[in-house]
Amino acid sequence: MSQIKLMSRAGRVVSGATAELGETLAVQSQARHTPIRTMCCSNEKTLTMETLNPKIIKLQYAVRGPLVDRAAVIKKELEKGAKKPFKTVINANLGDAHAMQQIPITFIRQVIACAVYPDLIKTADFPDDVKERAQSILKACAGQKSVGAYTSSYGMDMIRNHVAEYIECRDGHPAKWENVVLCAGASSGIKHCLELFCNKVDGKDTGVLIPIPQYPLYSATLAEYGLGQVGYYLDENNGWVLDVAELERAMCDASDKYAVRALVAINPGNPTGQVLKRENIEKIIKFAKENSLMIFADEVYQDNVYAKGSKFYSFKKVMTEMGAPYNTVELASFMSISKGYMGECGLRGGWMELCNLDPDVQANLYKAISAMLCPSTIGQIVVDCIARTPAPGDPSYEQFECEKSNTLDSLAKRAKMIVETFNKMEGFKCNVVQGAMYAFPRIQLPKRAVEEAKKAGVPADGFYAKRLLEDTGICIIPGSGFGQSPGTYHFRTTILPQPKLLKEMLVIFQAFHQKFTKEYA
Amino acid sequence: MSQIKLMSRAGRVVSGATAELGETLAVQSQARHTPIRTMCCSNEKTLTMETLNPKIIKLQYAVRGPLVDRAAVIKKELEKGAKKPFKTVINANLGDAHAMQQIPITFIRQVIACAVYPDLIKTADFPDDVKERAQSILKACAGQKSVGAYTSSYGMDMIRNHVAEYIECRDGHPAKWENVVLCAGASSGIKHCLELFCNKVDGKDTGVLIPIPQYPLYSATLAEYGLGQVGYYLDENNGWVLDVAELERAMCDASDKYAVRALVAINPGNPTGQVLKRENIEKIIKFAKENSLMIFADEVYQDNVYAKGSKFYSFKKVMTEMGAPYNTVELASFMSISKGYMGECGLRGGWMELCNLDPDVQANLYKAISAMLCPSTIGQIVVDCIARTPAPGDPSYEQFECEKSNTLDSLAKRAKMIVETFNKMEGFKCNVVQGAMYAFPRIQLPKRAVEEAKKAGVPADGFYAKRLLEDTGICIIPGSGFGQSPGTYHFRTTILPQPKLLKEMLVIFQAFHQKFTKEYA
Repeated sequence: MSQIKLMSRAGRVVSGATAELGETLAVQSQARHTPIRTMCCSNEKTLTMETLNPKIIKLQYAVRGPLVDRAAVIKKELEKGAKKPFKTVINANLGDAHAMQQIPITFIRQVIACAVYPDLIKTADFPDDVKERAQSILKACAGQKSVGAYTSSYGMDMIRNHVAEYIECRDGHPAKWENVVLCAGASSGIKHCLELFCNKVDGKDTGVLIPIPQYPLYSATLAEYGLGQVGYYLDENNGWVLDVAELERAMCDASDKYAVRALVAINPGNPTGQVLKRENIEKIIKFAKENSLMIFADEVYQDNVYAKGSKFYSFKKVMTEMGAPYNTVELASFMSISKGYMGECGLRGGWMELCNLDPDVQANLYKAISAMLCPSTIGQIVVDCIARTPAPGDPSYEQFECEKSNTLDSLAKRAKMIVETFNKMEGFKCNVVQGAMYAFPRIQLPKRAVEEAKKAGVPADGFYAKRLLEDTGICIIPGSGFGQSPGTYHFRTTILPQPKLLKEMLVIFQAFHQKFTKEYA
Repeated sequence: MSQIKLMSRAGRVVSGATAELGETLAVQSQARHTPIRTMCCSNEKTLTMETLNPKIIKLQYAVRGPLVDRAAVIKKELEKGAKKPFKTVINANLGDAHAMQQIPITFIRQVIACAVYPDLIKTADFPDDVKERAQSILKACAGQKSVGAYTSSYGMDMIRNHVAEYIECRDGHPAKWENVVLCAGASSGIKHCLELFCNKVDGKDTGVLIPIPQYPLYSATLAEYGLGQVGYYLDENNGWVLDVAELERAMCDASDKYAVRALVAINPGNPTGQVLKRENIEKIIKFAKENSLMIFADEVYQDNVYAKGSKFYSFKKVMTEMGAPYNTVELASFMSISKGYMGECGLRGGWMELCNLDPDVQANLYKAISAMLCPSTIGQIVVDCIARTPAPGDPSYEQFECEKSNTLDSLAKRAKMIVETFNKMEGFKCNVVQGAMYAFPRIQLPKRAVEEAKKAGVPADGFYAKRLLEDTGICIIPGSGFGQSPGTYHFRTTILPQPKLLKEMLVIFQAFHQKFTKEYA
């Protein structure tokens, strides 16, 4: 009296449609001695492309896509002596300063070394403020001795306090340390906050306004969480400005399909490099208030402002100074140790400041974060060092400031050089890189290359980027990975290669572009 | 001709039901100059308990719940001089060895210090193998110089290779480095794999078999992802053994509601401390094969085996030795740097090994992981140190082995002592702690206390744990946070307090229990 079983296409066993209720119950009572399903054939898997989470299939993250994998393979081939038209791969795809030989800040590294191996506080020839800082961190650790202890899920209270002080000093307005959450990089904070929006409102899925072009963590996370991507175009002809009329257009177009509830602004812009003007931020905040949107202020490049006349204003500062009712907009602002002058990507650290969240909502967010235990203590230490940098008179002060300004000055020069060079190249047009770490030039592609790409089923700028990599070893990310106005082509390159290498790269680039254009003329 | 807007209860603006199509279109064309929604009152929020992701509301994580928050508050009160019936809070709630004064492994910390501040390779009085290790890690970093560079999203290739070698050596069978993924602790690996299952199969949501009692990361993540929790009870009367008949019972009971597709086994057990016997693991693998389940082998306590006659067998090893068709079961095995003899919780590191996944599925998993950039390089360094420990003859060998065995021996003694003491206490019954870091005794609670708790709307063991904390400063986690058979009461305590403190804790515990029992007699 065993139940009839059928295999569905995806390999799952389904109850036979002919089995009667009595039979089914009889089988259940026998369950202790019979397998619940018939034996599967040995190649049957429970996870197949048919049964896999479809949102994971949809998710795309161009910055680490197949092109970057291919660059890694080429690098290995070169190491093994393969002959190529170039000698090295230049990874201009990722905002990874240390991979491009940027020098770490000495103070930060000395503090970490002492905190990790406290004997060094006694034995190493390090400045006193380094040792004091390490001691203060160890004292704030659970058990008061080891960075190997878990911290609070939101980071050490002491460091959250220092971040709040940093924000107060930056903005000239109070910040509450309880609203500061330390994270393993900005990405994890952004994901935690976006996840809060997974809910239907008035029968519609939630939509989130994101810039186009955008940093693809946003599109990837929206796909992963099943949230609606509502793109608003940045205005390339006006230096990638964020136009509120375009926000309205995007929101209006999406409102049939989505309950639009959040707005992402990346300032300084990634990949676009613009720095928002204060009045622009005011208009965005007004728009958010009028439409009950929570603002995600991605401000991880707040230290990376290069252009004359450009200045970083935080959304928090502007909102606070606008007064009621705009100072009640729900806001999450994100910061990272991976960018700025420190570039400590591998150590994974960052923070978010939450403003005006419903206290019950915030409590639920904190609860969800707590299941991930805590962010890396080492990332937290870096946060402490950049939130509370050595003060004038401290033994590490001069070296810290010197290292910081050397890095930022050099980045500013590279930002200028890269734009100037691109704009001298035929078929290239590049806006000023006011901030952040990238140039995002628009390129003209020969019609025949566009057709060729279409035949191959790839975006034309992806086709171009692949050829560039194979021919020259330069790895950039095509504009299609970030989004762009239909019919336009771009790519993102970092400004991070050191000056000499960057110059070389641009010469190679120019030669390649000429060759490519000629080939497909 | 402006569109009529209505406010829904959650504060969202909805289109007026009376608006005709023509009107709506007219409004859309005006959108550039009119706000899309009417002005909200200033206290209106987009994220409220009504509009928040309901899965986040459902999510619970007892190990860091309100009780632990309360312990932190009490600790601060004590520091400020508040008078309490005790002088210190004893955090026996979390598997956090360093917070309980466990000494870090010197080799690990010296390698990190050198990798973070490479000058120490020249200047510090560290053994040569420390310096060589640090140099090999720096060479494997992008740019070959700094741990501040991002690594591959799956960890440095070199370290993944070392982990594969470790697994081969542990199991006596091959392991592929490409199937090893380094993570920021086991938790993030577990979450990434569980997320793959978010899909309906044959019209049913996916269910996951998890032990009861369980480590609450599982219940929290299932709630967060909307996956079905299918609990199977461990058999307390048989040393918390994992009985396959009970797996069948659980699966059968759930099969109407869920497509059960995965099985979590925690070995050694958390919170239950059992170490699975080889034959037991074989039966579980057979069950998984027969029912097309992917196995999640939570093996983070693989170094923590104390009881005579107990031995750790990995699911991978047993499956491999069972041969076809069992060696084709889909498996993810998880390991962490937070447990074992190293206890480096704060540094966030771990790995997972994937076996027999559909290659397309694995490629999609890898793609999803890539959006989070990379796990902490420091956590990766610890993984390298424990995957490739100093070899006999290496300068650090003896100290490493000595520190490792001191820690594990002491933990074994504490495991024994805690069980013996509990079993001498009236109303306590505790299984042998064969492995892991916790005791999970069953306690009898006076009927009147159970009623009192019911009145207060809290689980009876939660009521007990709260009183224990308030009266003695001892913080444990009630059994209800892990799940338990209905009508039984337990709690989890770590075995991590150092021997002297642990003895003191047990004396205080005994006195409290007597007092509590008397009070509610």
